[in-house]
This record gives sequence, structure tokens and C-alpha cells, in this order.
Amino acid sequence: MHRLPAPGWAVPIFLVAGGAPLTVAADTSDPATKAPPFVSADATAHLRAITVPFSSFASEEGRTAYGRLFGGDHHAPEADANIAVRRAYYDRFNSALARRAEEIYPVHIEAQVLGGVKTEVITPKEGVAARERGRVLINLHGGAFLWGEGSGGEIESIPIASVGRIAVVTVAYRQGPEFKFPAASEDVTAVYRELLRDHKPENIGIYGCSAGGILTAEAIAWFQKEQLPMPGAVGIFCASAGKFGGDSSFLAPELSGQPPLPGSTEGKLSFTPYFSDVSVSDPLVLPMNSKQVLAQFPPTLLIAGSRDFAVSSVCQTDIELSKVGVKTELHIWDGLWHSFFNNPDLPESREMYSIVAKFFDRHLGRTVRSPTPGG
Amino acid sequence: MHRLPAPGWAVPIFLVAGGAPLTVAADTSDPATKAPPFVSADATAHLRAITVPFSSFASEEGRTAYGRLFGGDHHAPEADANIAVRRAYYDRFNSALARRAEEIYPVHIEAQVLGGVKTEVITPKEGVAARERGRVLINLHGGAFLWGEGSGGEIESIPIASVGRIAVVTVAYRQGPEFKFPAASEDVTAVYRELLRDHKPENIGIYGCSAGGILTAEAIAWFQKEQLPMPGAVGIFCASAGKFGGDSSFLAPELSGQPPLPGSTEGKLSFTPYFSDVSVSDPLVLPMNSKQVLAQFPPTLLIAGSRDFAVSSVCQTDIELSKVGVKTELHIWDGLWHSFFNNPDLPESREMYSIVAKFFDRHLGRTVRSPTPGG
Repeated sequence: MHRLPAPGWAVPIFLVAGGAPLTVAADTSDPATKAPPFVSADATAHLRAITVPFSSFASEEGRTAYGRLFGGDHHAPEADANIAVRRAYYDRFNSALARRAEEIYPVHIEAQVLGGVKTEVITPKEGVAARERGRVLINLHGGAFLWGEGSGGEIESIPIASVGRIAVVTVAYRQGPEFKFPAASEDVTAVYRELLRDHKPENIGIYGCSAGGILTAEAIAWFQKEQLPMPGAVGIFCASAGKFGGDSSFLAPELSGQPPLPGSTEGKLSFTPYFSDVSVSDPLVLPMNSKQVLAQFPPTLLIAGSRDFAVSSVCQTDIELSKVGVKTELHIWDGLWHSFFNNPDLPESREMYSIVAKFFDRHLGRTVRSPTPGG
Repeated sequence: MHRLPAPGWAVPIFLVAGGAPLTVAADTSDPATKAPPFVSADATAHLRAITVPFSSFASEEGRTAYGRLFGGDHHAPEADANIAVRRAYYDRFNSALARRAEEIYPVHIEAQVLGGVKTEVITPKEGVAARERGRVLINLHGGAFLWGEGSGGEIESIPIASVGRIAVVTVAYRQGPEFKFPAASEDVTAVYRELLRDHKPENIGIYGCSAGGILTAEAIAWFQKEQLPMPGAVGIFCASAGKFGGDSSFLAPELSGQPPLPGSTEGKLSFTPYFSDVSVSDPLVLPMNSKQVLAQFPPTLLIAGSRDFAVSSVCQTDIELSKVGVKTELHIWDGLWHSFFNNPDLPESREMYSIVAKFFDRHLGRTVRSPTPGG
């Protein structure tokens, strides 16, 4: 451990009840000559070039996966590569994960068109549990509003359908670069309307990861605009109902040797052309802009790894929803990364699937609706 | 933003569903010559000497407090200084905070001896709310099991008593260096037994911050050993039911220009002589050692700032309690530090007080027990 200069090193100042107006010596040293780590008067932190071991709380499987995922050389296509090339690249990863998930979690996967939108309906091979009949989950896949259709939705749905013994409808929503906001919100809404024909709204849950998490929040706002009833519960994973930003937008890239998500440190949505024409102040884009919209959210499950660039905004979403009286449930796995639970071989992924299944089981309604002709 | 070497920078790899066995080129570059940021094969992260602005999600008041608390020169006494000198130093801060809190949250403070243990009973000046009669909170102050008695307990209790309109009993438990584990657990238990004479256990809540959070968890384990009924709910703030460690034990000190808490990165309790004779495997010291003990925890509120060295272990506690079926509620304020809520002038502190009050209101029982002679 490096010895740090400074008086009072013996007991870190942060053991003091924090933040009182203190009688302190003015810091007159020249920041240009000060050696990190230090904090300047404007509260900017100046770090040293430290090494951080993999988290002592995470699994060995997680360590191995982290080393392979972030320690190797990857050859993702450039941002200006043809979208089909980029989609094929990520589809290769997602397909491998989805096929691995099916080995562990046998499911039926059936293509269906609901409300004019392409979906896959995923159900456990041993059948939907009796208490889950009448309930359904909608999954909104991740992939930067650019890719992830198909295999990306499958990897996010297969373990949940199986562990929860519940039907999961994963939606192939329109995305960039071909389409722009609000195309995906419209598609989710079309599927939701169709499911409302034979499901009570309180028996429907919606969840998504990354872009799918953003879309989950946007769907709730869109449903309000369309005066549709709220679903029973939602899950926003590795994403926010508001802007990205905060500490993790700086630290996560550094911890993974990756560049930051474009725009993430400034609260912009420039990482995807899907949002190129929006205002980030629009509550239909980022519901956190409106306390009124937020206050109508159903119970919300929030999940991330501590090394996810989005985790600060996930925590922020939890606080903001709590402030307006929405029931939240937040879980953060230390040391883990964005969408870690798409690796079904991690113990932490199994913990996550169990938590998701229990959350929806606890919050979705139970009574089955008789099919109403004309819905 | 620094340009990073590597193919595929255009879209960070972490947008890929995470952690699949990837076909990647073996990293044959010599780590000694590689430029950070990068991750080595053993998953160790090598960071650059970056600057991190104060969190975009935190308040301006938080920024000002952070700059003053961590940006100035502090003159805390050395670890080998006389304990009276050290206590006087921290008492000065805590007293200033407590008196400030009383300006905002007027209370009565009454010294009482309960079960042979010195306490202060803190009640809102406008009186305990009708629905809070029959309920009581026990506060266990922070301070490294070295200081914090008196004013440290007051600053942690005054806002909660006032916002919750509930009585808070803050306990002057025996601590180091004069006393060692399990002295504090015994004292908390003595107060608890006394309160059980005229309170139903489900109407009692216990919460603590930092050392007080550790002690809260230990008290639950000790009550089980003594075959006492569980209290209605607990709050563990800026602390863990298990070891410190994980990412925050490395990052928080760096973000605050402070040395790490001694032993924190290795899961040791060497930061205080109170634990000098214990085994860290003992569930009475760290309840997370026993699933059986953990499983009997009442509903648990977990709170920290993201820049708290303890936050990784707080998240870990949430996961481990959830795994054994205990109801948890986790909230993390981005950018904030260890015990931030002891500054009553931060907006985030007010949010925290409200969340704590609502949590106990939701989880404590309501019926009042008739006093039973002889308990």
C-alpha cells in the first residue's frame, strides 16, 4: 500500500461524521504540483495510476470471465461499419450465450406476431407453472438500439422464463439506424395492447437490460401518454429512467480498459442514432424529467454490477423513484459489469435470475382474466 | 477524452451481452509495457491517473461539502495519540453537527440508564406521533468502536427522531481501547431486554452507521444466541454484516485522497483495537459467516454513498441477505461519502431521513403492549 502524505492519515477523515463545516487549514498548495491522490477545492478527485484487483466479493467464474472479456483483444467492427456487419458480430456472441442458456434452461421458443410486431414467446419446457398462468413478462432486449434482436432477446429471456416458470415475450422492436424514437415505444405499446386483450395489466411485467432498460422506462411513459393502465411491475437493468452520468461513467471504463460510452459522462444519448432527433428533456425519452410520470411507475426492480458504466444512474433512478413514493428494489453485484447476467454460467447470474423471478412473483397479480372478445 | 488504443473502440465491448466464452486473440503484449487503462489476464485493472469530477447526480451542497471535507488539510490526531485527545477531536465535529441538527430538528434529549447502560432518549419537541407510540428505535453510533459516544449518537438520532416523530434511544456502548468485543453487543442486549419490558419486539427497530452498523448486525446475532425475539426491522448504514473489501475499499480512498481504512481491503478488522482478540470467522463478530444467522435477520435497510469505502460490502450484505430470503431495501447516493447523512444541511441527508422514517414505519408493528410487571 502506498504511503500517502498528509496529516491525520492514521485514521481516515471519512470516519468522522461527514461533511460539517470544518475549521480546516486552507489548501494553499498549487494543484499543479500536488501529488495524487487529492481532491481539489471544486471537489474534483485526482487519482493515481492504481491497480485494482478483481472484487473480493465476486466469484472465481466472474474473475475468469472478466479477464477474458476485458483482458483480451477484441475486434468489434468500427462505428462506421455497415450495420449488418455490426449486427452479425454481436449476434454471434448473443447466439452462443443463448444456446448455452438453453442447455441449462430448456425452453420452447415460438415466433409470434403480436399487435403487428415480431416477437418470440419463450416458455419453460416443463410448462408454465400453475400460479404463473395468466401472467406474462415482456422482455425488451439490449443492444444500443442498434442490435440485439433475436439472440439478444433470447439470452435475456431464456433463464427468466425457466427459473420463473413463466412466459416471456421478447419484442423485436424497431431500432436504429433504420428507425428513430419513438418507433420502439410504439412497438412495445402495440404488443402491450395485444396482451391486454387476455391479461389483466397487473399480471403483466416488463423488463429490459441496457437499451432495453431505457426502453422499459420509456414504455411506461408512453403508456401514460396513451392512457393505458400500468403493468404490475417493471425491471430496469443496467439502465436508467434518466441520463447516464455520475461516478460510474468515469470509473467503469477505466476499470475495464474500455472507452466510455459516447455521451455518457455528459448525459447525452449520442451512443445511438435512434435518439438523434430527441430532446433529453422529454419525459417520453427520459421519464426522470417528470415527477408526475415517475410517480406512476409500478414497483420497479433495479439491477446492475458495480463496474457497469450505468450503475450510478441506476442508483439515481432508485432514489428518484423512492422520492415520489414508488416501491423500488435495488441490487448491485460488486465487481460485475454491464449485462453480466447474460452469462448463464456465473453464480451471480443464477442469483439474479432468482431475484428477478421472485420480484415479479411478489408483485404481479394473480387472478386470471376471462378472455374478452374485442379486448 | 483520451483516445485509447485497441480495435473496436467505437463501441465499448461492454455493450455486448457480457461474459461469454469469446473467441479472442490471446493478449500477448507484455503487461510491463502496456499502457493503462487495461485489464490483465488475472482480471486486475490497471488504471490511469485520471481526474474524476464530482458526481453529476449529487447536489451542489454535496459538492461544496466534499471539497471542504476532502480538499482541505485536516489535522486529526495520530493513531497512537491519547484516546482522550482523539475523542475530543471527533467530538468537536460531531457536536457541531448535532447542534446544527437541533436547529433544524428540535428535540428533547434525556439521559437515561437502561439495563445498566448509559443512553440518551431523543424525542421530537412536538411529541412522538400517535402511531409511533409503543414503538422505539435504538441507535448505535459510529466512530470505529473508539469514539462517537454522546454527540456521535446525537447527530445520528436527532434527525430521525424528528422526521419519524419517534423516540430514539442512542446507546453509549462500551468500546475500545478500554473494552473489547463482545462488550458492545452485551450492552446493546441489556438495553434491548429493558425495552422489551414495555415494547413488543416487532415494535423495536435498531439502526447504526459505520461501527454502529457493524454493531447492529452483531446485536442481531447476539440476540439469537441469547434466544431473544428479533426486533421488527434494522438499518445497517455505511457498514456490513460481513467483511469490508471489494472495489470500494480501493476506489473510495483514491477518490477522497485518503488512506484506506486499515485492513479494509483484506477483510480484516484491524482498524480498531475493539476487535483485536476476535476471529473474523465468528458469526457473532461478522454474521455473514452463517447463513443460519443471516436468515433470521428482520427486514433490513441498507444505505451508503457510492464513494463510501464500505459500499461494496453494503451491496454484498444486500445480496447475501436476499439469498437467504430476508427482505432488504438498498439505497445508494452517487458521489457521496461515508456517513454523509450526518451533515443535516445536505438535500441528500433529508432524503435519507425520510427513507429511514418510512422504512421503519412500514416494518415496525403497531399494537401497543400493556406493561408486564417483571417483563
